[in-house]
Amino acid sequence: MPKFDANGLLTAVAIDHRTGALLMLAHMDAEAIAKTRETGFAHFHSRSRGRLWMKGESSGHVLKIIEIRVDCDQDALELRVEPAGPACHTLAPTCFYRRIDDEGLLQRVID
Amino acid sequence: MPKFDANGLLTAVAIDHRTGALLMLAHMDAEAIAKTRETGFAHFHSRSRGRLWMKGESSGHVLKIIEIRVDCDQDALELRVEPAGPACHTLAPTCFYRRIDDEGLLQRVID
Repeated sequence: MPKFDANGLLTAVAIDHRTGALLMLAHMDAEAIAKTRETGFAHFHSRSRGRLWMKGESSGHVLKIIEIRVDCDQDALELRVEPAGPACHTLAPTCFYRRIDDEGLLQRVID
Repeated sequence: MPKFDANGLLTAVAIDHRTGALLMLAHMDAEAIAKTRETGFAHFHSRSRGRLWMKGESSGHVLKIIEIRVDCDQDALELRVEPAGPACHTLAPTCFYRRIDDEGLLQRVID
């Protein structure tokens, strides 16, 4: 069993299984993991809304699970997925579309 | 500025900039971010030991920073790095070396 933190959560990282690109990072509780394994689509636990949500439930940009990996200390998951569209709610392909430059300013690197 | 959680931390994901492979996940506070930007090597905040640490400080398996990216809501960082050796303390190239199979058992997929 994975190791959850004091809030019953662990961190999950979604990776595009075809390109290897880092898509997004979110949190899962036991319910989100169970639902993800049961349905084959990534579900997370929203800390702000305090509820289960399926990625893409409103946008249609779901993440189909290809494989789930776990890290050495079993407190983080790698979801290897096939994205149905842009992973970010901004419609960028990944949530990590900006780099921090030497002055600490954000520069867009992915359109 | 990035957004820290109630404990003053955010999640950082290290990605091999050459292969795109997900290497490890750890936490950073403002001090770890400052030290990482200042030295060019990944530093994290250990939640269990309650202190700053440099990845590879004892093993020599440091992570040289190539680029730092930030996600859409600025509460997670992608460290694009050049690893000096295996990223995992188990000496696996990545901490995510096992998959969860249909029965929920862990199967090694990366040697």
